[in-house]
Amino acid sequence: MILKNSLLAEFVLGFLGAGQLARMSALHAFNLGLQIAAFTDRDESEPLQFLTPISSSGSFDDSNSLTDFAKKCNLITLENEFIDSRILFEVRENSGVPIYPSPETFSLIEDKLVEKQTFEQAGIPVTPYMPVKSEVDLNTFGRKYGWPFMLKSSKGGYDGYGNLTAQNQDDAVNAFEKLGGHRGRDIIAEAFVDFTHELAVQVARNSHGHVVYPVCETIQENHICVAVKSPARLNPEYQRKIQELAIAATEAVNGKGIFAYEFFLTEQGEILLNESAPRPHNSGHYSIEGCITSQFENHIRAVLDLPLGETALRKPHAVMINLLGTHARPAKVEFWEEAVKQPDAHLHIYGKIQSKPGRKMGHYTLLGEDPDEIHRQAKQVTEKIKI
Amino acid sequence: MILKNSLLAEFVLGFLGAGQLARMSALHAFNLGLQIAAFTDRDESEPLQFLTPISSSGSFDDSNSLTDFAKKCNLITLENEFIDSRILFEVRENSGVPIYPSPETFSLIEDKLVEKQTFEQAGIPVTPYMPVKSEVDLNTFGRKYGWPFMLKSSKGGYDGYGNLTAQNQDDAVNAFEKLGGHRGRDIIAEAFVDFTHELAVQVARNSHGHVVYPVCETIQENHICVAVKSPARLNPEYQRKIQELAIAATEAVNGKGIFAYEFFLTEQGEILLNESAPRPHNSGHYSIEGCITSQFENHIRAVLDLPLGETALRKPHAVMINLLGTHARPAKVEFWEEAVKQPDAHLHIYGKIQSKPGRKMGHYTLLGEDPDEIHRQAKQVTEKIKI
Repeated sequence: MILKNSLLAEFVLGFLGAGQLARMSALHAFNLGLQIAAFTDRDESEPLQFLTPISSSGSFDDSNSLTDFAKKCNLITLENEFIDSRILFEVRENSGVPIYPSPETFSLIEDKLVEKQTFEQAGIPVTPYMPVKSEVDLNTFGRKYGWPFMLKSSKGGYDGYGNLTAQNQDDAVNAFEKLGGHRGRDIIAEAFVDFTHELAVQVARNSHGHVVYPVCETIQENHICVAVKSPARLNPEYQRKIQELAIAATEAVNGKGIFAYEFFLTEQGEILLNESAPRPHNSGHYSIEGCITSQFENHIRAVLDLPLGETALRKPHAVMINLLGTHARPAKVEFWEEAVKQPDAHLHIYGKIQSKPGRKMGHYTLLGEDPDEIHRQAKQVTEKIKI
Repeated sequence: MILKNSLLAEFVLGFLGAGQLARMSALHAFNLGLQIAAFTDRDESEPLQFLTPISSSGSFDDSNSLTDFAKKCNLITLENEFIDSRILFEVRENSGVPIYPSPETFSLIEDKLVEKQTFEQAGIPVTPYMPVKSEVDLNTFGRKYGWPFMLKSSKGGYDGYGNLTAQNQDDAVNAFEKLGGHRGRDIIAEAFVDFTHELAVQVARNSHGHVVYPVCETIQENHICVAVKSPARLNPEYQRKIQELAIAATEAVNGKGIFAYEFFLTEQGEILLNESAPRPHNSGHYSIEGCITSQFENHIRAVLDLPLGETALRKPHAVMINLLGTHARPAKVEFWEEAVKQPDAHLHIYGKIQSKPGRKMGHYTLLGEDPDEIHRQAKQVTEKIKI
């Protein structure tokens, strides 16, 4: 790695994907003096594209345009897990440019089935699941784990897209069809877990070691994360156990970069790995101001094999609220003044040109001493914001 | 102001000047979802230009190209004080685009003589000075305030450029000539002040009010700031008094944006204003991680009339070390690994393509509990860094 012993001003870090995760990562890469290049598959200008003169666009299926892009860069990283690992292998081979997380890592996590098997083999308990190929399988799963259960596309799910709930056998057959199961798409059934907490944790790992963030609690509505509280209120034993599982999972896929994991904690005290993400994750946005080194900075440090930074919280508690679009209109943030007047409050707007209801347009982080108080306050001031 | 009640994604903030101060300001403007445009008068690509697709270049004396640039922007700000205020008035008039700090403010501080008179009228004690027009004036000043004294160009000084020391009358005449005094350039003589501390403080001010940063201590070598310690070790009365003078100075020039002030504290306990800067200042770089809201973020908030953020320190002490070029070569940072391994240490590299001895290439901030310990440690690890 060219960066191991020197930081070069003319080093170009390329991002595949140009959304808010790439944008926030880039903001931290700039601190190290790097240059940034963006590759996007969207027509609309994307958040990262406003931050660099070096932009390309094309399809994530087109290994030629990705290779051309990679040749302008010294290192490639990704902001999502939806590019086929076979394409990534080709791009790395044809451009000679390193890609982290590596294509090898992506080949282990791009398919939910392979991913779950990989984690299970590493001794990490996962939510009960089964690949389903037929109506009989659906029925078998429902009888074994109970109704309702989830059906998920094995590839390409994100924020609940590609996930459907099956209340009963008819529902399951419909969902199976909707997800393309009848057309041969790989579908897995996943049991509903009766959890008391949804927890998340981030691990940054490079060739020399890893760092792990505090375990935080995520609050979801309609499968979309609306808020994160860090640290989660858990006994220290669970904190430690979850951190250990997350580190083991990152090692199981030989991850280099930042990785995020979502866990369920059940009433019986079982810890089950639910989802993983080989990238900065919404659950870690609070770390920008909440931790000494943010998930974005540690992502950059990790892919470049730089020493990783401390993950300790700066204040006892942090809460992050997602700012979802409230209107279909050109982006415009209104009624945010009270929010930024709070002490140790931090508003992040991603620069998306177009808003629509539910779209992630920004987030808001509040740090403080009392977790309930800052959560209440953050909710109160962000409820007024219109985007 | 269009931004008073809404943040628009298509709002473009234009910077005149594209160096590290503009770059670090831009990084904070991106957090608010703004777009950035850069205007530079340099041939070499400048630090801000790597952060935006919208760049123009030309001369800061050419009001037409500046006006063309301004028309692409919703608001203009500046990273230095070297554009003639008459040009700024023209650009604002011809483009219709607001400029903050305003041309009116610049007209009061671009000339050291006018600036000192403005501050004196506001009751702010300044270092003893006199406009000098002739050899007789030089002699008069030397006899009144003693040798050596400083000669300064009334316009255009920066980091000691445009400043010369006069040890005696012959020296003074030479310096006067070098600075263009014989060709009619305005020169002022300034007494050497026998100070115990060089102190600095930043004030952010907008139409609604102001916030002020802790008073910090700057350590200079050859008129270049090499380190900053915040807070300065001063009794609280001096802290408060200096903050009050800085606020009064900002009000005296009706400043909108961030303003920095350098003060001398003498053995007799006198506080004298030495220099002012209508922009983010090297003495405030520590605030990026050291304070809840950095000087850069408050600059952006101030020029946009957004509510200003808290300035409290995050840890009891912060130290900032400038990373000056050590070699004339393409920029390359070596032997920095120990520096980033320190707890709560933050490396900033500005992305300049070319290094040269003494050039400001980056900075390093270390936060901690014990001011002497972090200063010692920061010096030790940064002394090894080669750029």
